[in-house]
Amino acid sequence: MGRPTYVQVTEVGTRDGFQAEKEFIPTATKIQLINALIDAGVPRIEFSSFVSPRAIPQLADVVDVLGGINRTPDTRLAALVPNPRGAAAAAAAGVDEMVVFVSASESHNLKNVNRSIDESLSGVEEIMRIASIDGVEVHGAVPTSFGCPFEGDVSVEALARVVGHYHKMGMRHVSLGDTTGMATPKLVTAACQHLQDKFPDMHIALHFHNTRGIGLCNVMAGLDEGISAYEASFGGLGGCPFAPGATGNICTEDLVFLLHEMDIETGIDIRKLCAIAREVENVVARQLPGQVMKAGLREDIYSMDEGATAVG
Amino acid sequence: MGRPTYVQVTEVGTRDGFQAEKEFIPTATKIQLINALIDAGVPRIEFSSFVSPRAIPQLADVVDVLGGINRTPDTRLAALVPNPRGAAAAAAAGVDEMVVFVSASESHNLKNVNRSIDESLSGVEEIMRIASIDGVEVHGAVPTSFGCPFEGDVSVEALARVVGHYHKMGMRHVSLGDTTGMATPKLVTAACQHLQDKFPDMHIALHFHNTRGIGLCNVMAGLDEGISAYEASFGGLGGCPFAPGATGNICTEDLVFLLHEMDIETGIDIRKLCAIAREVENVVARQLPGQVMKAGLREDIYSMDEGATAVG
Repeated sequence: MGRPTYVQVTEVGTRDGFQAEKEFIPTATKIQLINALIDAGVPRIEFSSFVSPRAIPQLADVVDVLGGINRTPDTRLAALVPNPRGAAAAAAAGVDEMVVFVSASESHNLKNVNRSIDESLSGVEEIMRIASIDGVEVHGAVPTSFGCPFEGDVSVEALARVVGHYHKMGMRHVSLGDTTGMATPKLVTAACQHLQDKFPDMHIALHFHNTRGIGLCNVMAGLDEGISAYEASFGGLGGCPFAPGATGNICTEDLVFLLHEMDIETGIDIRKLCAIAREVENVVARQLPGQVMKAGLREDIYSMDEGATAVG
Repeated sequence: MGRPTYVQVTEVGTRDGFQAEKEFIPTATKIQLINALIDAGVPRIEFSSFVSPRAIPQLADVVDVLGGINRTPDTRLAALVPNPRGAAAAAAAGVDEMVVFVSASESHNLKNVNRSIDESLSGVEEIMRIASIDGVEVHGAVPTSFGCPFEGDVSVEALARVVGHYHKMGMRHVSLGDTTGMATPKLVTAACQHLQDKFPDMHIALHFHNTRGIGLCNVMAGLDEGISAYEASFGGLGGCPFAPGATGNICTEDLVFLLHEMDIETGIDIRKLCAIAREVENVVARQLPGQVMKAGLREDIYSMDEGATAVG
């Protein structure tokens, strides 16, 4: 399969990024950032999570955030739903899409939600019923698709087992989550080929973390398999609970820069995206790993009075 | 051309990294780090520069550094030489290789060394004569191979012109320098194909900076063209004179991690390399961008008592 000519970029920063922040990000700030993302042309935003406020206080304002968003048909608003109760709340609040999640690794699923994979899959069936009442699309995420921090390697068969259950329940969108940055180009190629072979009508999205510095290399491997949906976080916000100092999700602006430079369209205004990432740096009051927002685009050239001499 | 099964990694941290540091790194520290790199199995080190101590005081101790290195036939020691005087000093000191440099862009060459490209090329001819007396191999570097901070795009013809001069002088090793991080996978593919077509017996090395976050993606593009030599800096040490906060060279450990995970051999012990990078963080007293030294390898799994829960 050839490289895609268009990629759908999903921004997950206000969910995957903010959920790990110590300070509560004000609701108005979240709304402002999401509206800016919509204005920049981001086609899909996983904007928050209908999770227990005790589990993740950072996202307790999910209903108020959704209420403040300038919704347009051009940007799909997705929310994570961990259980049927969250799904009912998400449906009532009027999200465009729900995202369910079941880890590919048993240990990670237990650690993450204190349930076995099979128990989680039962919950997803119930969520599917709730979503179908309001005709809300459900996407399935699979954390630890490319490796588990407790078990190590995760086989493509274990990954395909969860994806197969999603498929049987009627889902046609799956997101392979690289929860702790264990994906490699070789593993991405193997997983995509195996799943595309087994479930040819399943749309695959890839959700990489840059924990080991090769997140965008994994995107390259995904593009080579024809994968046309990727998830990323503004500024590269986020972290890894196991590795102090390690970065989180791949950075949205850097991803969009890469795609545009490969002649792949996203519909996104990258300069607006860079401005948003700099704003996020202000919000969290620290420098984030994103590079393009600091260095600018290739066409941002300098006068010869600028810059130090750097021999070699 | 298929992907290589072995890649020669050149460490440039003690040259390209240290030359940009404000504080002088003690000679003994440099020697210790270089000896550790040799012990880790790094096959080639661009260890310093025979440049005027006024231009780059950080590297004024080049002769003393070379004198302290535990030399082995398994690690080639290369030094940058900006002019015939530097070449004579390098030959007298006994380096394995000299690296000359002429930018692909006229503006950058003027800004970098205050000479035109043609004037620089004349200097290189003189250096070739000096090196040949002692039988020292000369490699040619081409800064701004993929773009110039003053001129923007650099054509493959402009790049090929400098490489062609190198070739005519007898050089068979060229390093394409991405001085300010303007390379993209598309440009890498185009440059490598053009040069391999025009100069099939020229060995190409790629020297990327991660200024815009896609340095290792450019490596992927180079690997697809069969390029089997890459230059990188420990911990990702270095910077960009135009972009405060932007990173410098691609990170050696992250590069080696990527290569090993793609089943490409380097002969390097990556755990030793990570230890060196952490030592460099101590030396420069700040956190560096390298990720693998923080996150560990894929096989470094955790007990289920460790790490915070991170839903999704």
